Amino acid sequence: MPHIDFKNDLPGIRSALAFSPQTAEPLGALAEILLRSDEGLTRAERELIATYVSYLNDCFYCQQSHGAIAVCYLDGDTELVEQVKKDYAHAAISDKLKALLSIAASVQKGGKFVTPEQIAAAKELGATDRDIHDTVLIAAAFCMFNRYVDGLAANTPTDLASYPLRAQQIADKGYGNHIFSNKQPVHENEGV
Amino acid sequence: MPHIDFKNDLPGIRSALAFSPQTAEPLGALAEILLRSDEGLTRAERELIATYVSYLNDCFYCQQSHGAIAVCYLDGDTELVEQVKKDYAHAAISDKLKALLSIAASVQKGGKFVTPEQIAAAKELGATDRDIHDTVLIAAAFCMFNRYVDGLAANTPTDLASYPLRAQQIADKGYGNHIFSNKQPVHENEGV
Repeated sequence: MPHIDFKNDLPGIRSALAFSPQTAEPLGALAEILLRSDEGLTRAERELIATYVSYLNDCFYCQQSHGAIAVCYLDGDTELVEQVKKDYAHAAISDKLKALLSIAASVQKGGKFVTPEQIAAAKELGATDRDIHDTVLIAAAFCMFNRYVDGLAANTPTDLASYPLRAQQIADKGYGNHIFSNKQPVHENEGV
Repeated sequence: MPHIDFKNDLPGIRSALAFSPQTAEPLGALAEILLRSDEGLTRAERELIATYVSYLNDCFYCQQSHGAIAVCYLDGDTELVEQVKKDYAHAAISDKLKALLSIAASVQKGGKFVTPEQIAAAKELGATDRDIHDTVLIAAAFCMFNRYVDGLAANTPTDLASYPLRAQQIADKGYGNHIFSNKQPVHENEGV
């Protein structure tokens, strides 16, 4: 049961966003820019970083929802997303992304855990200052989003079949305010 | 030395915000709403929660800058801010704020550390759902801001005398984009 009365039955972070539309707006804008920018990192790479950090923070809702969005950008490759969460070093991803995921894992522990050696390794593999900036901010932002969801004990759908439809909507239309709208899902199958 | 070339010499988070104005805008808007809302918690209480979480995350820049802003709202009471950081249970603050700081400390560790007992205790002492929501989101947001600053190894002024002037500017004018502007400080004493 959620720690507060959200006055809605929306799943996961959407319940908190609907409860507090004034903070939902910048949070939605931040997600949109960080996860859907086409400068540098791809959208798939951005969602993989978000999913991996949410996995490290043990946030079920965020790792499932962002994992499902990553799958949309990866032609349905759910195995790759699972592999990145569990052992990215052996996943079929670029060495540059592996170096950035290592930085993201350090950020998850705390900003000071990022080492000059990790940064140098990422740059050696082609990461730009923009890539490193975005990796650090995506990882940091999911340390916020994960805590927002679980710190308020938001309801989390356990039925994994409910995530892909909402994921496809976000992949198609983004994290705009229509996603965070106050209304209830029109149909059961609108997803999370 | 910062991990990336910010292309500016601004202190702390301001260097990262100037490097990436597209993400600075929602980050500034989020800080403005979370820390300067007059609904429920006071601005002093909001800054104390931010300062305390930054202290727990060992982020020197954020704990000094937000501590200095809290001091502005507390008629210059620097001792109270230090007391809240080191042992809030014995600080001259309300029992309600103590209960909320306990929740903030749990959020700092991870969202799932917040217990129903902590929530019940806060409600018993008069905390509303809005107060609890804002406490959780402020604590979560500073788990992001702290990691953004330290994860990029932003330059942090160690001269404590440099913080109060910038703090007064923020207390007076807020976290609007003029604070995060790309320009260099006009005068040395403009502060951080």
